[in-house]
Amino acid sequence: MPDRVVLAYSGGLDTSVAIPYLAEKMDAEVIAVAVDLGQGGENMETIQKRAIDCGAAESVVVDAKEEFAADFCVPALLANALYMDRYPLVSSLSRPLIVKHLVTAARQFGGTVVSHGCTGKGNDQVRFEAGLAALAPDLQVIAPARDFAWTRDKAIEYAEAKGLPIETSKKNPFSIDQNLWGRAVETGFLEDIWNGPTEEVYAYTSDPARPRDPDEVVISFARGVPVALDGRPLTPYAVIDELNRRAGAHGVGRIDMVEDRLVGIKSREVYEAPGAIALITAHMELESVTVERDLARFKRGVDQRWSELVYDGLWFSPLKDALDALIADAQKHVNGEIRMTLHGGRATVTGRRSDDSLYDFSLATYDTGDAFDQSLAKGFVQLFSLPAKIAAARDTRKD
Amino acid sequence: MPDRVVLAYSGGLDTSVAIPYLAEKMDAEVIAVAVDLGQGGENMETIQKRAIDCGAAESVVVDAKEEFAADFCVPALLANALYMDRYPLVSSLSRPLIVKHLVTAARQFGGTVVSHGCTGKGNDQVRFEAGLAALAPDLQVIAPARDFAWTRDKAIEYAEAKGLPIETSKKNPFSIDQNLWGRAVETGFLEDIWNGPTEEVYAYTSDPARPRDPDEVVISFARGVPVALDGRPLTPYAVIDELNRRAGAHGVGRIDMVEDRLVGIKSREVYEAPGAIALITAHMELESVTVERDLARFKRGVDQRWSELVYDGLWFSPLKDALDALIADAQKHVNGEIRMTLHGGRATVTGRRSDDSLYDFSLATYDTGDAFDQSLAKGFVQLFSLPAKIAAARDTRKD
Amino acid sequence: MPDRVVLAYSGGLDTSVAIPYLAEKMDAEVIAVAVDLGQGGENMETIQKRAIDCGAAESVVVDAKEEFAADFCVPALLANALYMDRYPLVSSLSRPLIVKHLVTAARQFGGTVVSHGCTGKGNDQVRFEAGLAALAPDLQVIAPARDFAWTRDKAIEYAEAKGLPIETSKKNPFSIDQNLWGRAVETGFLEDIWNGPTEEVYAYTSDPARPRDPDEVVISFARGVPVALDGRPLTPYAVIDELNRRAGAHGVGRIDMVEDRLVGIKSREVYEAPGAIALITAHMELESVTVERDLARFKRGVDQRWSELVYDGLWFSPLKDALDALIADAQKHVNGEIRMTLHGGRATVTGRRSDDSLYDFSLATYDTGDAFDQSLAKGFVQLFSLPAKIAAARDTRKD
Amino acid sequence: MPDRVVLAYSGGLDTSVAIPYLAEKMDAEVIAVAVDLGQGGENMETIQKRAIDCGAAESVVVDAKEEFAADFCVPALLANALYMDRYPLVSSLSRPLIVKHLVTAARQFGGTVVSHGCTGKGNDQVRFEAGLAALAPDLQVIAPARDFAWTRDKAIEYAEAKGLPIETSKKNPFSIDQNLWGRAVETGFLEDIWNGPTEEVYAYTSDPARPRDPDEVVISFARGVPVALDGRPLTPYAVIDELNRRAGAHGVGRIDMVEDRLVGIKSREVYEAPGAIALITAHMELESVTVERDLARFKRGVDQRWSELVYDGLWFSPLKDALDALIADAQKHVNGEIRMTLHGGRATVTGRRSDDSLYDFSLATYDTGDAFDQSLAKGFVQLFSLPAKIAAARDTRKD
Repeated sequence: MPDRVVLAYSGGLDTSVAIPYLAEKMDAEVIAVAVDLGQGGENMETIQKRAIDCGAAESVVVDAKEEFAADFCVPALLANALYMDRYPLVSSLSRPLIVKHLVTAARQFGGTVVSHGCTGKGNDQVRFEAGLAALAPDLQVIAPARDFAWTRDKAIEYAEAKGLPIETSKKNPFSIDQNLWGRAVETGFLEDIWNGPTEEVYAYTSDPARPRDPDEVVISFARGVPVALDGRPLTPYAVIDELNRRAGAHGVGRIDMVEDRLVGIKSREVYEAPGAIALITAHMELESVTVERDLARFKRGVDQRWSELVYDGLWFSPLKDALDALIADAQKHVNGEIRMTLHGGRATVTGRRSDDSLYDFSLATYDTGDAFDQSLAKGFVQLFSLPAKIAAARDTRKD
Repeated sequence: MPDRVVLAYSGGLDTSVAIPYLAEKMDAEVIAVAVDLGQGGENMETIQKRAIDCGAAESVVVDAKEEFAADFCVPALLANALYMDRYPLVSSLSRPLIVKHLVTAARQFGGTVVSHGCTGKGNDQVRFEAGLAALAPDLQVIAPARDFAWTRDKAIEYAEAKGLPIETSKKNPFSIDQNLWGRAVETGFLEDIWNGPTEEVYAYTSDPARPRDPDEVVISFARGVPVALDGRPLTPYAVIDELNRRAGAHGVGRIDMVEDRLVGIKSREVYEAPGAIALITAHMELESVTVERDLARFKRGVDQRWSELVYDGLWFSPLKDALDALIADAQKHVNGEIRMTLHGGRATVTGRRSDDSLYDFSLATYDTGDAFDQSLAKGFVQLFSLPAKIAAARDTRKD
Repeated sequence: MPDRVVLAYSGGLDTSVAIPYLAEKMDAEVIAVAVDLGQGGENMETIQKRAIDCGAAESVVVDAKEEFAADFCVPALLANALYMDRYPLVSSLSRPLIVKHLVTAARQFGGTVVSHGCTGKGNDQVRFEAGLAALAPDLQVIAPARDFAWTRDKAIEYAEAKGLPIETSKKNPFSIDQNLWGRAVETGFLEDIWNGPTEEVYAYTSDPARPRDPDEVVISFARGVPVALDGRPLTPYAVIDELNRRAGAHGVGRIDMVEDRLVGIKSREVYEAPGAIALITAHMELESVTVERDLARFKRGVDQRWSELVYDGLWFSPLKDALDALIADAQKHVNGEIRMTLHGGRATVTGRRSDDSLYDFSLATYDTGDAFDQSLAKGFVQLFSLPAKIAAARDTRKD
Repeated sequence: MPDRVVLAYSGGLDTSVAIPYLAEKMDAEVIAVAVDLGQGGENMETIQKRAIDCGAAESVVVDAKEEFAADFCVPALLANALYMDRYPLVSSLSRPLIVKHLVTAARQFGGTVVSHGCTGKGNDQVRFEAGLAALAPDLQVIAPARDFAWTRDKAIEYAEAKGLPIETSKKNPFSIDQNLWGRAVETGFLEDIWNGPTEEVYAYTSDPARPRDPDEVVISFARGVPVALDGRPLTPYAVIDELNRRAGAHGVGRIDMVEDRLVGIKSREVYEAPGAIALITAHMELESVTVERDLARFKRGVDQRWSELVYDGLWFSPLKDALDALIADAQKHVNGEIRMTLHGGRATVTGRRSDDSLYDFSLATYDTGDAFDQSLAKGFVQLFSLPAKIAAARDTRKD
């Protein structure tokens, strides 16, 4: 039996051409695996058929939308995951799930090699290969763009020479990756970091400057997980999908940044993540109401480390597991509702309520009913500031 | 000679009434000290005169606007200081500077007691008294609201009984503190955290939903410090003041949050800080371009700790000094320009340029001129993920 | 029914005299609660009887040795808890457990007030009262030494005046607290920090300089918990107790330090914790063998925070719970055996073995059988150091 | 002119044989550079001559002992640098300095290639090459052991075939690296981690079990830097050198550990660092006396990150510089004297004194003269524990 290569298949030009190319180059059969992560675009059956038409021995499509939402987007939400305080980890979240399904297909169809379309200067190669190293260290990896210097120009030439059933004339100036959690755009004129993005860059969000009536939404959370919108119980997938539409209509979640890649360079990235940004904003506010101060302060550092780790491709790693354990514990009381206004590019919290609230009106109010014993404050202030006071006295003494 | 009490004086009802009250209660002379931190409102000479009219032995006004901007707001900017990722430390920054001028006045006029108007359940008492403990541990502190349970109702009654030259009829439903770096509003109907703020709460910012043409600004930084707007060299004070107006006109910098106070309770706070938010956004982006990855990752934790420390009143403390030393070192290369659009409540970066940029087009581009050697990636990926791989193999072995 | 005060009772002079004193001062009945934490010393029945003889309405003794070992010492071991890198948290661990039993007794006997013997300048008052605030916020707290300025001299005078059945003539120059996890000594000539401790300070450890044959011990761990010594299965209590004797015989675990108290002062403390130090040393080494690098690096910070939190009296707190969740996850693979030599004040690891080891001979060896692919290194090194390289080139360019 | 290769030269078999091997393989002239870091062993002139005898075009020896002590060991001391809480970074400190002198020689003698003897699975290749990337990114790097699979067996064969003036018969079972700051031993029977080290492994330290009279030393520090022993002013080099002898004579500073290498594997290492361990112990204690609590707590994390960074080869990096700035600020008051007893493998602090001490006898004492106002404690304790109390009440309410 020939070797079988399991290919992460998107349906686009590069991975379609990779099917006959890998078959030829590796003298192998190709198993195409396309994973639906809510990225929209073409019908999955069309994609499945195209792989066969391009010569795949097997073509698999996996509907992983609910799995992606529940097992990858929700953990990111619990960690308020924003790499460099801005980027909600769109692509970083999808790669480990794709890897999981590639490994499943490899086991099912006898694959011994896994192939992906990433280049050698991006983060996604690391996310693919670190994931594979963890889940299936026995499988070999081939990345044609990186390992065979296989470029888009060569792919077009090859497709035309072979008469592959794939459109080669359209040229998108940008490199794009998208899924339920957001959309990433890079290259083209964005590589000049003094250039601002134009409206054509965006697809998930409308122009925030376009006048429109505000949209008010109430998001319900249970242990940090979004479970309902406006009182309607929904799965995580349905929550994110609906918020993508509603927040996207108001231009919420556009991000334009210079980013530190794991491979050591800085790159310019534009993202749009309307649902993710609305949800993270709401979740952070509910944490402010329900999570105790010391835990909240410590969790910020944990959230940052979680984001870096997942950005860096280490989804399947002991530290990730341990951080998840802490985060899960911290979500015990993150129950309640957040009311938000979506408008003009902003997702603004306007109300919060929770049976687990640590906000205590009787301690906080300056009005009738104040239960705070102010006589305690003097001793607190003096001992709290005593170390700095002793140090200051030392400095004075030394002068 | 009688005791002399140095009073932090705002010109408002509470501290005006405190002048004769303290004189009587402490059998002392009162030195009123009003500090101009760019808070706007009444003329400082009017305030100075009112203190005398209320019975102060001395009335001092200090124009500390430039000092506040350069020595307090700028360090906060270098630290991207956002307590709980949101609040730019408006009041936290002003208290140590007021303390400094109170101490100066105490030394000049022979004061032995310092007095402030803070209650016993807020943060500001800590900021005042921790500052005093560091700068002048010999001075006694009296906080009438906390130590004598001196309330607004009692103050009004006292003012009317004494016929003090101060308006007692107007009642602002909110408790407000404001300065150049922003404005804080609390109490009133905001104490119900399900209530959203209404437009009347705001004074520094216009309604972001009101249609208006965008404003584009280019901010120049040198070692992290803003030094020019649109090419016009300005002092830090002038930069912040102008951005307060321009970003405020577009509703930038409104913040509504539940916050962890140092004294152990959660409180509801509404802030508006148009200049601060615009500047921090710009500064963070310039850091993304000019600060190396490991340093940038570490600095996030430093910035968080800095914000907590200053929020907690420990401006004058050894840890604050040491964090400042690290932050200053990290700003060596934070030079360059950020172009922003101010519009609809958003301050959006659209361009960045810097002679110190670490963004390297030739390494980042996917176009002609790519200088990145992709053949290095395979070894990197494999060794980078080796610890997680060995751990995963262990887990498998154990199953 | 009169008020009932539940007193943390040690059997010593101060708390014995506190029984009639509190009864009189508070016009209340006193419930004495003595907790056996493996501190040795007097028989618990003698202590129980003495409380009655001094006038207690009820006298309770609780054998909490196994509970203390399993639920308090073991979590400290999993966290490698060493406050300021040195102090294994002896007293900090016992206070929350004593509080738990005080609350149990208060519920059983109708107590409404809890009393302890701590002063107002130590850490233990915080540990008692923070614990009570968490477990039983309805109970009032009285600390006679702090709240009534009740001193030892007054206690002796009172005891003699009342003819209490308690020895008042012996005077230990030191203040001592001890339990299964170690022994703390302070005050006396140790308050001069230039003085070294003398042999009389110590009770759990022999002079390490005294010649003696080494003792070799093999400690077995399961999920980080010590479960056997030299192959003999033992409870955590029995492990610690045996190691206290064996390591103590060799002078292991003496600590002499200047320490940062929570109340803001520095104090001089001498500790001896032979079992604790031997176990922490062994546990850290087994973690080195079985915990993955990134997790190990992160856990050091978690361990430090855990130690500070417990030192600061916040055993019952949300952050403590969340850190425990992370630590528990990190212990999944901390299984195996550590061989140690106890000798001359040192507990030295000489061997480690584990089925969960991440040490891979075939990757580590420079001998025949080397499985490490050195060709991967070049790419790793170059991309790993790329950010620093780009930054260095920037610096050069700027010069 | 032929290419010139600058070789990091130790005088030993491998690098001696590398001289003619590189000349032949690279068709180049070899510049041998030997750096004296206080490693002892052969006379530097003998080493210099051997390089010439083996065919080097130039042979340079650099006496860098004082520079190494002052600019590399001292910063490590200020950071209390112990990788994994144990290893004082012996080899990690020397590599950046060797790189510096290699670059100097390359510039002086027109070298375009730099060569070192490291393998592809150790840390030192990273330290060499990350250093070169920062200091001289234009220079090419060749590591024969890694890049040409050049083994010791091949080297011996080659030496004998060429009749090189170098001893090939002696075989040390261990791989050793040593310098002023300590000595590292690996491989051989130590690769079985259940084997304990034998006495023959050690060279810097005597058997700690051997009876001997204790040695008492007083170390003086100025801004954290050791400046005198027993009152005799000394350079950092002289301090370390003397303490290596005196502490080494008592067996201080033996370390046996399983360590996380940067390249992703765990390895077994044995170290001895008598002077380093004595100095770090003393320095940490002086910090305990002179550094304020919050700063001390934060600095622990900084020290850990510094150690990881330097272990990982990033001596020349922006984060290292920024951490150094913080550490330098934190040393402002680390002045004073530490008295230590060196005996039986232990370096035990017995006294500390400092004009900058924050230990305040009058606040700490329980004796006459106590200046601590205990009445402040109650308010402190209650507000300090309020967040945990409110959270505990919430938990109860929810049950």
